[in-house]
Amino acid sequence: MFPSYDVIVVGAGHAGCEAAAAAANMGSRVLLVTMNMQTIAQMSCNPAMGGIAKGQIVREIDALGGYSGIVTDQSMIQFRMLNRSKGPAMWSPRTQNDRMLFATKWREALEQTPNVDFYQDMVKGLLVKDGKCYGVITGLGHEIKAKSVVLTNGTFLNGVMHIGDKQFGGGRVAEKAATGITEQLVSLGFESDRLKTGTPPRIDGRSLDYSKMEEQKGDEEITGFSYLDVEKIKPEQQRSCWITYTSAEVHEALKTGFDRSPMFQGRIQGVGPRYCPSIEDKINRFAERERHQLFVEPEGWNTVEIYVNGFSTSLPEDVQYKALQMVPGFENCRMFRPGYAIEYDYFPPTQLQFSLETKQVQNLFFAGQINGTTGYEEAACQGLIAGMNAHLKASGQPPFVLKRSEAYIGVLIDDLINKGTEEPYRMFTSRAEFRTLLRQDNADLRLTEKSYRLGLASQERIEKVQQKQEGVAKVKSILKELPLDPEDINHHLEEKNSALLTQRQRAWQILLRPGMDILSMKNRVQKIANALESFSAEILEQAEIQIKYEVYIEKENELVKKMSQLEDLVIPEAFDYTKLVSLSSEARQKFNKIRPRTLGQASRISGVNPSDVQILMVYMGR
Amino acid sequence: MFPSYDVIVVGAGHAGCEAAAAAANMGSRVLLVTMNMQTIAQMSCNPAMGGIAKGQIVREIDALGGYSGIVTDQSMIQFRMLNRSKGPAMWSPRTQNDRMLFATKWREALEQTPNVDFYQDMVKGLLVKDGKCYGVITGLGHEIKAKSVVLTNGTFLNGVMHIGDKQFGGGRVAEKAATGITEQLVSLGFESDRLKTGTPPRIDGRSLDYSKMEEQKGDEEITGFSYLDVEKIKPEQQRSCWITYTSAEVHEALKTGFDRSPMFQGRIQGVGPRYCPSIEDKINRFAERERHQLFVEPEGWNTVEIYVNGFSTSLPEDVQYKALQMVPGFENCRMFRPGYAIEYDYFPPTQLQFSLETKQVQNLFFAGQINGTTGYEEAACQGLIAGMNAHLKASGQPPFVLKRSEAYIGVLIDDLINKGTEEPYRMFTSRAEFRTLLRQDNADLRLTEKSYRLGLASQERIEKVQQKQEGVAKVKSILKELPLDPEDINHHLEEKNSALLTQRQRAWQILLRPGMDILSMKNRVQKIANALESFSAEILEQAEIQIKYEVYIEKENELVKKMSQLEDLVIPEAFDYTKLVSLSSEARQKFNKIRPRTLGQASRISGVNPSDVQILMVYMGR
Ligand SMILES: Cc1cc2nc3c(=O)[nH]c(=O)nc-3n(C[C@H](O)[C@H](O)[C@H](O)COP(=O)(O)OP(=O)(O)OC[C@H]3O[C@@H](n4cnc5c(N)ncnc54)[C@H](O)[C@@H]3O)c2cc1C
Ligand SMILES: Cc1cc2nc3c(=O)[nH]c(=O)nc-3n(C[C@H](O)[C@H](O)[C@H](O)COP(=O)(O)OP(=O)(O)OC[C@H]3O[C@@H](n4cnc5c(N)ncnc54)[C@H](O)[C@@H]3O)c2cc1C
Repeated sequence: MFPSYDVIVVGAGHAGCEAAAAAANMGSRVLLVTMNMQTIAQMSCNPAMGGIAKGQIVREIDALGGYSGIVTDQSMIQFRMLNRSKGPAMWSPRTQNDRMLFATKWREALEQTPNVDFYQDMVKGLLVKDGKCYGVITGLGHEIKAKSVVLTNGTFLNGVMHIGDKQFGGGRVAEKAATGITEQLVSLGFESDRLKTGTPPRIDGRSLDYSKMEEQKGDEEITGFSYLDVEKIKPEQQRSCWITYTSAEVHEALKTGFDRSPMFQGRIQGVGPRYCPSIEDKINRFAERERHQLFVEPEGWNTVEIYVNGFSTSLPEDVQYKALQMVPGFENCRMFRPGYAIEYDYFPPTQLQFSLETKQVQNLFFAGQINGTTGYEEAACQGLIAGMNAHLKASGQPPFVLKRSEAYIGVLIDDLINKGTEEPYRMFTSRAEFRTLLRQDNADLRLTEKSYRLGLASQERIEKVQQKQEGVAKVKSILKELPLDPEDINHHLEEKNSALLTQRQRAWQILLRPGMDILSMKNRVQKIANALESFSAEILEQAEIQIKYEVYIEKENELVKKMSQLEDLVIPEAFDYTKLVSLSSEARQKFNKIRPRTLGQASRISGVNPSDVQILMVYMGR
Repeated sequence: MFPSYDVIVVGAGHAGCEAAAAAANMGSRVLLVTMNMQTIAQMSCNPAMGGIAKGQIVREIDALGGYSGIVTDQSMIQFRMLNRSKGPAMWSPRTQNDRMLFATKWREALEQTPNVDFYQDMVKGLLVKDGKCYGVITGLGHEIKAKSVVLTNGTFLNGVMHIGDKQFGGGRVAEKAATGITEQLVSLGFESDRLKTGTPPRIDGRSLDYSKMEEQKGDEEITGFSYLDVEKIKPEQQRSCWITYTSAEVHEALKTGFDRSPMFQGRIQGVGPRYCPSIEDKINRFAERERHQLFVEPEGWNTVEIYVNGFSTSLPEDVQYKALQMVPGFENCRMFRPGYAIEYDYFPPTQLQFSLETKQVQNLFFAGQINGTTGYEEAACQGLIAGMNAHLKASGQPPFVLKRSEAYIGVLIDDLINKGTEEPYRMFTSRAEFRTLLRQDNADLRLTEKSYRLGLASQERIEKVQQKQEGVAKVKSILKELPLDPEDINHHLEEKNSALLTQRQRAWQILLRPGMDILSMKNRVQKIANALESFSAEILEQAEIQIKYEVYIEKENELVKKMSQLEDLVIPEAFDYTKLVSLSSEARQKFNKIRPRTLGQASRISGVNPSDVQILMVYMGR
């Protein structure tokens, strides 16, 4: 019934969809097997993409030729560039999305990918012989063969949901769990463990009083995620989100359910995400905080369903409800569905190679939540890399690996492979030691060419990148040359409260001054307007960032070089870590216990941050 | 956590959605509880609405103020008026729909209905005391109270799916089954039994060769289902369906799987729909037929998924696939998902009153597939009536019941209540003895006022009906009067091959001639054009039908009267049914066995058709 495939992808969540698209677009014949074709690319939790560090990942996925950025742009209902007031390394695009439209657009994109076949069935096991995977076995008993297999089972492997003292099996509410795979992998020598994640209750928006909340509007300008020209909504069409807060009263109400909490009573064994905790976790761990922020987010264009971001919980439902009613604006709220926690199997990712192929079984790749991560973006980027490498492996080519200095994706995979994770892993800017380099504005400049060479990023993409590069170079050289006399620009310097010119200066010099920016200079200074007339806003912005942050960028580039040389640097055996007061206490403990032999090894110890490694370097005289 | 509701509706399929909307729009405070809010109004099987007899039902639902017609109009991708070449009693509107859009529009419509609350949970049992239902118990343990409860569980009650020799529990693929309710109802004295239905495989449209099939385009004019002005697609935007055929070869291939057929091997105990049989059933029962027609139907605007209407099957998947590949155009087909059969619990509907309230337990209503019917339209109309009556009961008013002579809905419920059903019941025009009255064009004239009086149909609807009535009356009186001289119309009569006028005649007389129709008369005859200028196409069509079919309509109206008088007519005890050769053999057997006491009772025996009753009447001298 089935041909022999190059790549089989199991599961059509965020990881599986990217994996299938990437392998197919590189030329593999791909089968995407998923339990339910109606739930392709379903957002299990909040209808939003991007955010701090995650937004950078989505742009990287897009730069590499993945679909997440395009689909997100097509289905957004609100766009915000977070952290605009900080330096460009911190800028992070984030969208609110229409949940149904997001899934629809993903499915359409996949259906329009010629090499992707679909099949609805549950994969129950793998075909493995002599340590090599050569296909899958489905619930209906089909043996389907492939050169590479990518597992992206998400939260479905032996999934169990919890609300208060109730438990029920399933991969998401009302969906079945997947069984068989964990058991087989364990019998093949894999280690598996349990993790948990949670989701907040959904509310009937008609029952909320928005006058008691703060409105959070979308940005006035929508740049979006994709570097391609995707048709997007107009800024004035955006839907607002709303902000409200818990209170001591809410916390007290929640505490009345702690004796029935599956987490506190030990019914949930899996470890939850430390950085995306449930509300009961937050109350417990940050007892001193009087309130927590809640984001009240619409689920789409035409639905009244509301997502209460920040109120993830598995407390008994009556407690969820009672507490919510004390939140300003929620006095008369009606619940559509309660929050819940879900426990599932994952495979500690130290069992993987950099390509996301498993060490134990050849031709078998893991991506997404199955590797212990949490988040759509984290899943999607792993899917993309696993899909690329599944194709490369199937066609006898060397793997594609991104370094920590090249992409957040590189940081993520390096962290997973080397440090593993004992709790659901999510990305933060602090995990990236070279974050000035890994900006959302330059993911295309960093990555598209690599992917184009491998046959994934399209001709259109690479041409856009080249145009951008050329444009930026031109702008930079124009500004380097362009002489400005006091009468050209003093009116603008005055507006900006910047020292007036007394003699001619180059535009570049003036741009370097704090508070100056290229757009207003162009708008207010005729000479600059004339010189930069033909350049797009994107190119001008990029040139500005490169000019204004040159020093930092250079410094990091040097650090990258230095680090790669230091990788093998031997740490003296008797090194006294207690001297290093600025080390984090966790790093000091671990160093003392493990006594790493090289700086490279030290940097890969779980719990050790890039900053700890830098401190070590400094103390070793580098 | 929950207020006390007027009406709780369990399940958000076609029946549940209509029930919730109807009760809410009549003024009840309604809670719609469903297992998965992502699957509201999901089309479990083919993405199409209406068709013969079913199209009439959708128009009746619309005339009564239900939502199915509106939602269907908003989500159609193709419209056809079936049977246009036959008399207007047979005209049946049918649409192909975008599956996702249909569900989205339903959900939006419900969310915009102020009195409907939603709750996602599985109902596990009913609150019953002293033979009265007063609420439900959910999987999460909530007891939610209500004055009336409507159960619309569809195929979910102890659902089991079959493909070849594989079985798995669930309400639809990858969805969980519902448990608990059947067991409780049986303990309360209800009878339950098993039925089955099936669905065909879904195919990747990119793998089909349409040049080997016949194209079936949409109509050039789209009237749609709703009597309101719903925005619809333009005729030229429609998507085509395609027709192809099985063959002796295909049948032979299918037969190779009969030894693993869950149906033929007795693993499925439930009875399947006789009139919507699986392909293996068709081959078996109509062994003489060399081929069966297959409709190849797109599932939506932008998806490549294809529904193979006519190929419903639960044979092993490899057999499905092998056989399909022999169908012209399917040589290289790829399957997205196999066909399957599903077995589920139903409650023989003789346990219901005309209001759809159960006889055993007060305030408890059943609607949809749980009553042994099959089909979206059959489910939706029961939901509407159950919702209306749940509201009426909750507010102490008498029930709303439609007669067989008033609506297909009346026929359906009368059949169910009185005859029960031992196989999935679907509607046919032949079930309606008064089908000349029950046309798709006059459902508004028949029903809207009744519903308006009860507070369901809106002011807008009733005004449209009144306008239509007035318009029709005016057109009729104009035509009755309007004198036409030979020179006015002979050119048109010549075109129509109709005898020329030699003297003046009324327009009405001429319209009565076979082959004449009001639209062409208006287009070709200036005098008529002038007289009818201000009337809409709908009004003209209605007037024409009333004029041209007056005799038949009158005859049926009289029959209705006569039948209602005969209801109590006593059949002589010794009546000899063997004399009545024209009786169907099933009716003769049943009459002989049961020996009904009155004509009314005779007509309600299962397997007895309206025509059998009429024969009986004639022999009894009426
Ligand atoms: C309740 C819940 C709450 C969450 N909360 C958050 C949050 O607050 N913040 C956050 O960032 N992330 C959250 N997440 C995580 C986020 O949803 C996931 O990280 C992300 O969706 C993982 O993507 P994935 O592709 O790995 O898996 P999924 O999106 O889970 O997709 C898995 C896919 O595989 C299919 N599948 C599984 N097993 C099989 C099989 N054997 N055969 C065939 N198909 C199979 C499934 O049907 C599904 O399509 C939450 C997830 C859940 C379930
Ligand atoms: C596989 C299959 C094939 C079919 N083939 C055809 C066909 O070829 N032609 C045709 O005309 N018809 C067909 N049908 C029938 C058609 O789908 C149904 O008749 C129609 O959908 C019934 O509508 P309903 O509202 O009664 O139930 P459904 O549409 O089944 O909806 C039931 C709803 O109730 C919910 N629910 C169930 N139990 C509970 C509970 N305890 N608590 C909360 N919620 C609950 C479910 O989640 C669902 O939303 C088929 C159905 C199936 C499943």
